Amino acid sequence: MLGIGKTGWIEKEKPVCGPLDAICRPLALAPCTSDVHTVWEGAIGDRHDMILGHEGVGEVVEVGALVKDFKSGDKVIIPAITPDWNSVEAQAGYSMHSGGMLAGWKFSNIKDGVFGEFFHVNDADGNMALLPEGMDLASAAMLSDMAPTGLHGAELADVQFGDKVVVIGIGPVGLMAVAGAALRGASEIYAVGSRPNCVKVAREFGANQIINYKEGDIVEQVLALSKGKGVERVIVAGGDNDTFDQAIRMLQPGGKIGNVNYLGSGDYVKIPRVAWGVGMGHKAINGGLMPGGRLRMEKLAALVHHGRLDTGKLVTHKFKGFEKIEEALMLMKDKPADLIKPVVIL
Amino acid sequence: MLGIGKTGWIEKEKPVCGPLDAICRPLALAPCTSDVHTVWEGAIGDRHDMILGHEGVGEVVEVGALVKDFKSGDKVIIPAITPDWNSVEAQAGYSMHSGGMLAGWKFSNIKDGVFGEFFHVNDADGNMALLPEGMDLASAAMLSDMAPTGLHGAELADVQFGDKVVVIGIGPVGLMAVAGAALRGASEIYAVGSRPNCVKVAREFGANQIINYKEGDIVEQVLALSKGKGVERVIVAGGDNDTFDQAIRMLQPGGKIGNVNYLGSGDYVKIPRVAWGVGMGHKAINGGLMPGGRLRMEKLAALVHHGRLDTGKLVTHKFKGFEKIEEALMLMKDKPADLIKPVVIL
Amino acid sequence: MLGIGKTGWIEKEKPVCGPLDAICRPLALAPCTSDVHTVWEGAIGDRHDMILGHEGVGEVVEVGALVKDFKSGDKVIIPAITPDWNSVEAQAGYSMHSGGMLAGWKFSNIKDGVFGEFFHVNDADGNMALLPEGMDLASAAMLSDMAPTGLHGAELADVQFGDKVVVIGIGPVGLMAVAGAALRGASEIYAVGSRPNCVKVAREFGANQIINYKEGDIVEQVLALSKGKGVERVIVAGGDNDTFDQAIRMLQPGGKIGNVNYLGSGDYVKIPRVAWGVGMGHKAINGGLMPGGRLRMEKLAALVHHGRLDTGKLVTHKFKGFEKIEEALMLMKDKPADLIKPVVIL
Amino acid sequence: MLGIGKTGWIEKEKPVCGPLDAICRPLALAPCTSDVHTVWEGAIGDRHDMILGHEGVGEVVEVGALVKDFKSGDKVIIPAITPDWNSVEAQAGYSMHSGGMLAGWKFSNIKDGVFGEFFHVNDADGNMALLPEGMDLASAAMLSDMAPTGLHGAELADVQFGDKVVVIGIGPVGLMAVAGAALRGASEIYAVGSRPNCVKVAREFGANQIINYKEGDIVEQVLALSKGKGVERVIVAGGDNDTFDQAIRMLQPGGKIGNVNYLGSGDYVKIPRVAWGVGMGHKAINGGLMPGGRLRMEKLAALVHHGRLDTGKLVTHKFKGFEKIEEALMLMKDKPADLIKPVVIL
Repeated sequence: MLGIGKTGWIEKEKPVCGPLDAICRPLALAPCTSDVHTVWEGAIGDRHDMILGHEGVGEVVEVGALVKDFKSGDKVIIPAITPDWNSVEAQAGYSMHSGGMLAGWKFSNIKDGVFGEFFHVNDADGNMALLPEGMDLASAAMLSDMAPTGLHGAELADVQFGDKVVVIGIGPVGLMAVAGAALRGASEIYAVGSRPNCVKVAREFGANQIINYKEGDIVEQVLALSKGKGVERVIVAGGDNDTFDQAIRMLQPGGKIGNVNYLGSGDYVKIPRVAWGVGMGHKAINGGLMPGGRLRMEKLAALVHHGRLDTGKLVTHKFKGFEKIEEALMLMKDKPADLIKPVVIL
Repeated sequence: MLGIGKTGWIEKEKPVCGPLDAICRPLALAPCTSDVHTVWEGAIGDRHDMILGHEGVGEVVEVGALVKDFKSGDKVIIPAITPDWNSVEAQAGYSMHSGGMLAGWKFSNIKDGVFGEFFHVNDADGNMALLPEGMDLASAAMLSDMAPTGLHGAELADVQFGDKVVVIGIGPVGLMAVAGAALRGASEIYAVGSRPNCVKVAREFGANQIINYKEGDIVEQVLALSKGKGVERVIVAGGDNDTFDQAIRMLQPGGKIGNVNYLGSGDYVKIPRVAWGVGMGHKAINGGLMPGGRLRMEKLAALVHHGRLDTGKLVTHKFKGFEKIEEALMLMKDKPADLIKPVVIL
Repeated sequence: MLGIGKTGWIEKEKPVCGPLDAICRPLALAPCTSDVHTVWEGAIGDRHDMILGHEGVGEVVEVGALVKDFKSGDKVIIPAITPDWNSVEAQAGYSMHSGGMLAGWKFSNIKDGVFGEFFHVNDADGNMALLPEGMDLASAAMLSDMAPTGLHGAELADVQFGDKVVVIGIGPVGLMAVAGAALRGASEIYAVGSRPNCVKVAREFGANQIINYKEGDIVEQVLALSKGKGVERVIVAGGDNDTFDQAIRMLQPGGKIGNVNYLGSGDYVKIPRVAWGVGMGHKAINGGLMPGGRLRMEKLAALVHHGRLDTGKLVTHKFKGFEKIEEALMLMKDKPADLIKPVVIL
Repeated sequence: MLGIGKTGWIEKEKPVCGPLDAICRPLALAPCTSDVHTVWEGAIGDRHDMILGHEGVGEVVEVGALVKDFKSGDKVIIPAITPDWNSVEAQAGYSMHSGGMLAGWKFSNIKDGVFGEFFHVNDADGNMALLPEGMDLASAAMLSDMAPTGLHGAELADVQFGDKVVVIGIGPVGLMAVAGAALRGASEIYAVGSRPNCVKVAREFGANQIINYKEGDIVEQVLALSKGKGVERVIVAGGDNDTFDQAIRMLQPGGKIGNVNYLGSGDYVKIPRVAWGVGMGHKAINGGLMPGGRLRMEKLAALVHHGRLDTGKLVTHKFKGFEKIEEALMLMKDKPADLIKPVVIL
């Protein structure tokens, strides 16, 4: 990223490795819709000559003197969120906000991202996880952001055995939310989306019903499917401020919303007063950035490694070679009909 | 209530007692702001010839054949919310929504209230609590609605040891929220209000700071008091849809809002997108009707009985005699400067 | 049950239906190990001429005057635990202990069980669930006790995404615990057991590893599999008081035990002091009777109905005809090698 | 500590300050019963020439190059538990077990303690808190261990509004548990103990009833006070393995135990099978080491600073001068009748 709306290649010094840090070279990289927001929508403000990217698998080439558990040559999964673990925010259980709201997100935000020849990882012991033996690189790259974000939607919505769950949006994060809802014991999952490839994968991940907004109001469709009662949980992984109006209206009293969607514009999220029980309906509204760090990567990698979660299904386009990143990024920007997620293998 | 905007006395048959129910005569009654909303704002729609009131202490005059734990002559506290305990909503932990959103609220809503010569209590064993020996009737009447609602604000906001807590609104419910925040271990409580009587009681209940909106933006005042960091918890016990805009902006990432305020008008509650972390700030928004029923009454009565909670401080105006209810209700409507809560002793 | 150690057929009056109750005739019945404990071990003390059984599917033949949601002819699932929903225990969230510890268990404990021509269900609206259209009767009978008990093990152990979970005991409840751990997002499940039929089904439900105590100390086997670290969760569904010694020793600090096993003899459950961190290791020990009632049945039935949970795999022996109950019970007592669970279809 | 059973003064080099660390000199110190266990009971095994002590307030004399928030001259509270915040255990929410069970406890365990001319603090930004302006040093020294441990008992027991709570043991930790139970909204607190000074302070902190084991079985006394029902919560802050037998028997189904007592001898903690509901009574058993680190110190210091918690009441003996530490330690060993806690001011 050269500036808002402009991308290109840039020469930079190899990053410096602090005593707790690591320097890695990428093995697999994936562009994210957030990269598109960053460049073309200026989502996080102007950035100049910043290297993009926060999803990837790498090989360690250097570690700081205080790093205990990693060494050069280790293959590692790097989470999009790399907290400062000793911050008071992390001590309070919100490591993703270490140093300030959303500030656990460092790559391609407050420092260079992973789309470089080398990249820097803060607190290597706390923020990298060994790539399990035999794990496919493309599947592993989905662990940086797509899987932890989607599954966090199911955590925020607090899915319990037998719940009916709506997942709004079935891009890669929404698909992981479908998988997450199934993995936490939902009985019925209604997935809102329309792109054929995504619909197919949503069904494979456990969606019972696909709701297409083109076929009528999605709230009415959900109410019809649930015999007028609404659902216990809604995971928001797409849409905009107005989506919360729909989510609240399809929710039962005592229900919970888990939002993991980036809200890019508008002043106010819309919570409909009456459907929210005039403030007293016990419809909880939660939204949060994914938890990152080493343990999260290890746990989700274990789910993939043991066949509980197939992140590989997200990868529709594979490229080979560092120079293909730009192409992959443009694909993410243009979103052809058959795209879920591209990965570049190096 | 004769109709929207009209009150008066009405003759009705003594209510019929079902096998699980009880009939009581009132010993102490308190009008609620909700009664004012019901009559003069038509908050719950039109009601004709409905007896108002849902706060009171009574004496049992009749019990149904299946009632096990109560008998005629027992003095009892009656909660504003009297759930159907075998409903699926109650089984899910949301008894206040038994039979539908907010439908655990029956008195002066879907049936006659307590401002009658006799009133009917559904599921007596599940919804009444014995008045502890020696408890002041006026203090006990505050247990029907004011105490459980205010303390539920502290529960919804999930106050933990050492938290900084803002309580917005210090009417009787807000004052109970202040007491509730102190009782759950808040270190600092900032109470937003201005009426001198309420301010005095807020300080007695544990407020460290009083924030007056007349002295500037309350968000700025909270940020100044918290050295720019904001607070961990906000309990909303007053204001309107726009109050949530302020609440979100004074909250830390990882913070929680507990709303117990009835939102009377407007289409949408306003959640500010950017201050809400573009959807990902982990600022949880909870709002809910008070839990009612017998156990809740017993637990809160124990707090009062053992001197942990002094609900009597809320009672600024005491009346004597059934016919004074109208005067007390008008007082609640007109809200003179020195009013917190009136009670009528019979 | 005629007395401890004696079973036989007995003539009784058709049970009386109270205003909230229902009378059902059985459609499918399953004997439980608890029935064996009750008769041959005197587990709940002496009982004379008590009808056994608490697992079954039935048809409603009579409902009380206050029953709203069921009518004669309805086919229903009946949970083993049928709480008094308005009790203070249920209001506190522990309906299975309504009226006293474990007293939500009424069938074949404090009243006649379901192995009769007719049986009585207290609080029909609160304690029965409609049999979903097309559901296999044998699979449905597993919802009375096996599924809710096994899945409660996973709830008590609080399984989270990516956890390693040990399930001790793979009888029918333990198998449901394996399924429950998988359904809540465990990454690895180590199932302790040896009977070939159970091992086969455990693998089908998601066990990655089978641990056979005949092949060495199970703690050492678990530590070996987890690279010396132990596991995050242990579900106890078999064994005895000493099993907790093993469970604590295979658990990580911060780990949790969920016990759903009936402990039939001995004075003290053994918690090893040092392995429990001299009292400070944050190894939580939970144990509890299954939650019963209508909502629980509806939620678990939805899991079966939508193909998330295949309770039918438990049923290894099917009988036809009321008179076969005794044979099925004896099978449960003798536990032949290929038995998991017998069902009698009527 | 020179070896088991032997104490004395020793000359050591000034500790070395790593890049994240700080070196402090003590301002106030307090010996702990754990120090007595360490020396005279060999509780943590043999240690040679190890400096004792883990409770204290200090002044920073040196900080590492990567320390951001502290500088020489800062007065700070140092927690007994100083975790490695980037460890996987801390990421899982159990920082006190970072690096292994109980291994967040470093002072006077796996490195020299605070009873030296200088002492070393690992991860200064994560593990020290500024002493609030004007806070009494003796009160502040109680924040290192006594307050966080006692209050953690109330957290582990999960005290809720209106609960009846038993606190077993009213030494300094038990007294803080009494204060913690009151601060979380208990209605009644029964404190088990007999020493007059402790009894007096227990009442000041909110105990309603004092239970003296010399006056009969404490379980029977609790049952008598609770009308045979038992209590919702038990905090164990004294006693031994057998204490859990009592705790379980005085607990209601659905109740919770929070243990913060160090269990010094014996093989097994005794959980009575029948009173534990034959494994199914939902009587949860939790026990854990105090959470340490910066945020915890800041939160509890705020409670003291704002007058919510008066830790100063614990301090019965004040000494002046470094050389008095031995005298204070001996006092802790001999426990005269009027002792709660000694502090040495430097």
